[in-house]
Amino acid sequence: MNTTGKVIRCRAAIHWKPGAPLAIEEIEVAPPKAKEVRIKIVATGLCGTEMKMLANPNSHNNYPIILGHEGAGIVESVGQGVSTVKTGDKVITLFLPQCGECASCLNPGGNFCVQFKQSKTGLMSDGTSRFTCKGKPVYHFGNTSTFSEYTVIKEISVTKIDAVAPLEKVCLISCGFSTGYGAAITTAKVTPGSSCAVFGLGGVGLSVIMGCKAAGAARIIGVDINKDKFEKAKEVGATDCINPQDFEKPIQEVLFDMTGAGVEFCFEAIGNPATVAAALASCHESHGVCVIVGLLAAGTQLNISGWLFFSGRSLKGSVFGAYTVSCSFKYNVTYARSAV
Amino acid sequence: MNTTGKVIRCRAAIHWKPGAPLAIEEIEVAPPKAKEVRIKIVATGLCGTEMKMLANPNSHNNYPIILGHEGAGIVESVGQGVSTVKTGDKVITLFLPQCGECASCLNPGGNFCVQFKQSKTGLMSDGTSRFTCKGKPVYHFGNTSTFSEYTVIKEISVTKIDAVAPLEKVCLISCGFSTGYGAAITTAKVTPGSSCAVFGLGGVGLSVIMGCKAAGAARIIGVDINKDKFEKAKEVGATDCINPQDFEKPIQEVLFDMTGAGVEFCFEAIGNPATVAAALASCHESHGVCVIVGLLAAGTQLNISGWLFFSGRSLKGSVFGAYTVSCSFKYNVTYARSAV
Repeated sequence: MNTTGKVIRCRAAIHWKPGAPLAIEEIEVAPPKAKEVRIKIVATGLCGTEMKMLANPNSHNNYPIILGHEGAGIVESVGQGVSTVKTGDKVITLFLPQCGECASCLNPGGNFCVQFKQSKTGLMSDGTSRFTCKGKPVYHFGNTSTFSEYTVIKEISVTKIDAVAPLEKVCLISCGFSTGYGAAITTAKVTPGSSCAVFGLGGVGLSVIMGCKAAGAARIIGVDINKDKFEKAKEVGATDCINPQDFEKPIQEVLFDMTGAGVEFCFEAIGNPATVAAALASCHESHGVCVIVGLLAAGTQLNISGWLFFSGRSLKGSVFGAYTVSCSFKYNVTYARSAV
Repeated sequence: MNTTGKVIRCRAAIHWKPGAPLAIEEIEVAPPKAKEVRIKIVATGLCGTEMKMLANPNSHNNYPIILGHEGAGIVESVGQGVSTVKTGDKVITLFLPQCGECASCLNPGGNFCVQFKQSKTGLMSDGTSRFTCKGKPVYHFGNTSTFSEYTVIKEISVTKIDAVAPLEKVCLISCGFSTGYGAAITTAKVTPGSSCAVFGLGGVGLSVIMGCKAAGAARIIGVDINKDKFEKAKEVGATDCINPQDFEKPIQEVLFDMTGAGVEFCFEAIGNPATVAAALASCHESHGVCVIVGLLAAGTQLNISGWLFFSGRSLKGSVFGAYTVSCSFKYNVTYARSAV
């Protein structure tokens, strides 16, 4: 049945209010307007960002809302003026849009498109929602709202992938994998033969390890207080794994002992200000680069010794692995092929 | 009179104890040992670092000490095994040695030679001083001790310059000029057409402006609470100068208003943790780079909103303009020529 131009009824996980559990509800999804795409979501990840929101009774989203941003699916229909995807295309969702026109999109050094902020309203560009549930409008989340069987997304938040890509795997490219892998490859620019440390061995941390390995790092040290994560970390490329709780001295001193002069590239994939400070202190004094990959909660203050910077260390932010519209497209296609 | 191999009696400014004024005294300068160079100092700058030390009643140096690190002079004699300079060469002093062999010297991304730390002892490599005054040994400072008519320095802390260089000008290459100019060129890698802001318009800040201008920045905004510094700043390349005290809103908001989206390269040339935080916040969210050029006092903690990093900003340390032994040599020669 051709659903183009019609309202689609389907199921979605609604977050009705802060602190409430997700509720599976029947919703209506309006057709896409100009420069919008309606997508049948086939697979979605559950990112730590949503886990934190669900656990936070003071979350600042507008409610009710459909969360989810790590999605992959098939284009059901497109609105007027959409040119980069068409019905039937396999796509992944991009919580970080790429308008291709703003100062961030046009600068090779960054990817934080100015249109990202528009997502905070929870509404599409025309100031309305495409979702209703029980007669009420439901807010969009992160330009994506993938916890729904169908969603409507701006064209600039969608990228086409290879037709043979396994959607249940490549949905992770929508956030976790790209965030970690890109932090190593694109943000830190890990060099062959270098030493790396990764604090936090969740999905993002493991992706950082894969990036470090792909870049040819000689030593990749995984750091986590949960030893159960070490096996997987070693499987994807960690050469050593350590638990800070096994040592009397601070972890930065342990890493200096292990490497002789500090690690050259350090990644914080937790989102904890104390770990960020330790990761920076673990870096080589002269050319060490520390990348903050973990999402720090809003309002978090970093308290860092100014002296750590004197000798030349760098502390860098990274969002969505610093991928831009052109490189993310090429990379998604390539990765989708290799994942088959 | 050939003084090679002999003790030289000359004058030096001795800092006898914390809080005391400098005292001009007659001292003895021993001949250089292996891999050391004795230099007749012709000109020396007075850096903010020394100003802070002289004003600090709790300074952690060893005493008595001969301060000064921004020097230029002529090689009087060399110790055994010295090959890069010879008697009669014009040289400048390098407070940051370049052994050329350690991980920092060999890595193109850094310049913080491991031998820098040895200078903190105030003694030469053999654990002794080359200075005596009134029968007491006097400590060296910063690998250089240029507040003396003659000094002894390790070969790796000396670099030869052009024979026609005017020493009273090029002594500033030993610290202030290189620190600022290199922060723009080498650390930040300012790009043509970009927007820059420089907090603090002292000698280092002015040198940053010169670096930004040489790199082709389109806009260079000088920031200082002393308006008397604006004329000189504009003379060397600032396109605008502003005084934070002239505005009701925080300086980062003023800079966002002026540039539309924040400055692309921001430099803190003061050494104040609050200004570092403001400088980072003034940067473009996505690809903005903030360089800490000012020397933060030991023990200073930076308190910075973690959110500033989420979108991709970078905070970088820089010492001696990130110049390394090879580039500093080439650059010193070039600059010395242009300064004639």
